[in-house]
Amino acid sequence: MLERPHTLVPLTFFADRYESAKSSISEDLTILKRTFQDRGTGLLETIPGAAGGTRFLPYILKDEAQEVVNKLIEEMSSDTRYLPGGYVYMSDLLGSPATLREIGRIFATQYLNQSVDAVMTIATKGVPIAQSVADFLNVPFVIVRHDTEITEGSTVNVNYVSGSSTRIEKMSLSKRSLRPDSNVLIVDDYMRGGGTVGGMISMVEEFDANLIGVGVVAESTAPNGRTIGDYTSLMRVDAENNTVVSQPGNYIEKIFN
Amino acid sequence: MLERPHTLVPLTFFADRYESAKSSISEDLTILKRTFQDRGTGLLETIPGAAGGTRFLPYILKDEAQEVVNKLIEEMSSDTRYLPGGYVYMSDLLGSPATLREIGRIFATQYLNQSVDAVMTIATKGVPIAQSVADFLNVPFVIVRHDTEITEGSTVNVNYVSGSSTRIEKMSLSKRSLRPDSNVLIVDDYMRGGGTVGGMISMVEEFDANLIGVGVVAESTAPNGRTIGDYTSLMRVDAENNTVVSQPGNYIEKIFN
Repeated sequence: MLERPHTLVPLTFFADRYESAKSSISEDLTILKRTFQDRGTGLLETIPGAAGGTRFLPYILKDEAQEVVNKLIEEMSSDTRYLPGGYVYMSDLLGSPATLREIGRIFATQYLNQSVDAVMTIATKGVPIAQSVADFLNVPFVIVRHDTEITEGSTVNVNYVSGSSTRIEKMSLSKRSLRPDSNVLIVDDYMRGGGTVGGMISMVEEFDANLIGVGVVAESTAPNGRTIGDYTSLMRVDAENNTVVSQPGNYIEKIFN
Repeated sequence: MLERPHTLVPLTFFADRYESAKSSISEDLTILKRTFQDRGTGLLETIPGAAGGTRFLPYILKDEAQEVVNKLIEEMSSDTRYLPGGYVYMSDLLGSPATLREIGRIFATQYLNQSVDAVMTIATKGVPIAQSVADFLNVPFVIVRHDTEITEGSTVNVNYVSGSSTRIEKMSLSKRSLRPDSNVLIVDDYMRGGGTVGGMISMVEEFDANLIGVGVVAESTAPNGRTIGDYTSLMRVDAENNTVVSQPGNYIEKIFN
């Protein structure tokens, strides 16, 4: 059940597996429910009736979320992460399973009560974020690419203006990857001008799908404002003069206040 | 403990968390150990002494592994997956959290008793595989790229011959991403001629690291043989004349026989 979050498991499954009566399973689940709630691991939702069962919705509480954000900020605030041109090295964080799990749980909490059908991101560094969020929501994720690869079949292409460079770029997504009317959550690792995220929003529209939200791990202070309206960020990270400065993003305030 | 596989958790952690004596925790763990073993979920390893504790090593048993491989083969054997030029569409499988969890568990089982320090893959479609295997082994994963991106900092570049096209291509990996002498496991989604995997093997050598193994989800029947010696594959998938033919790879035979 923990491995299949957001999926309804019928009581008969547990009864068969543990060879016990449904009533005692039901009691055990009540204990588990209380434990999860006390611990802030998630919500155990029970739906009565023949078609009913129980469903685990993982979430994170404010204190733990705050802790995760603080830890991320601390890790990011190292000048060794500074890269020429005002860029920041964060590939190591996006390659750490423990960090990714925390990021996934944080964003999954935000969309706990919304029906998300797919998580969308852009290659390459958005992929680990998307996979982790999708894992906690137990929905598929789709990868938009900068190049068109033959193994994607027919694709839908979108042109967008890269905010930081004011160049026109292209992104493509396999036609098979999204159904019309899907509810799509966009995630990415870093947002500067918002051009890439804007491109993905156009992509969602091209597929006649619905945008549910935008979540980024880090955003920079946008120099000329952003074209993206509503989004959530865990951190605000800026790199200038060989220094990296990290502060909290809008997540905690937006979700818990 | 389940969320941090391969990590030693001291008994005192459980004693503090559940406010009970170490002896009763120890009894509970024995029950858990038996349950895990009966169910084939994994191994609970207990190390005695003051520096000791308990560690969860997830694995998969032969029957379940066989089931996972059969399910993959069934899903792959659809002619709608055929793409012009003898390519196969499998992005949907690589975007399904449930499938990825199974693939991760399968490869993690193979390297259960070996010390793996990092999982290496190449962008874009290898990333979900690497993340899932790394998650089960609880080690970081690193992403080799075809392009050199500014946010990677200084990189090490390797030229390789793409087997299928006999073109010379370039791959690069951030210098910061691997420590010398690391034990590296290479994974990828699909192997044709083996040129890309061969390039990654050269990359491992460039970093003075050690190659532990190579695992691919699918391999094609190599037309002119392969340059790669030892590897593990879950499936053998060939696409010809608008048809996709899938068979078991060498995994089950290699690991369980």
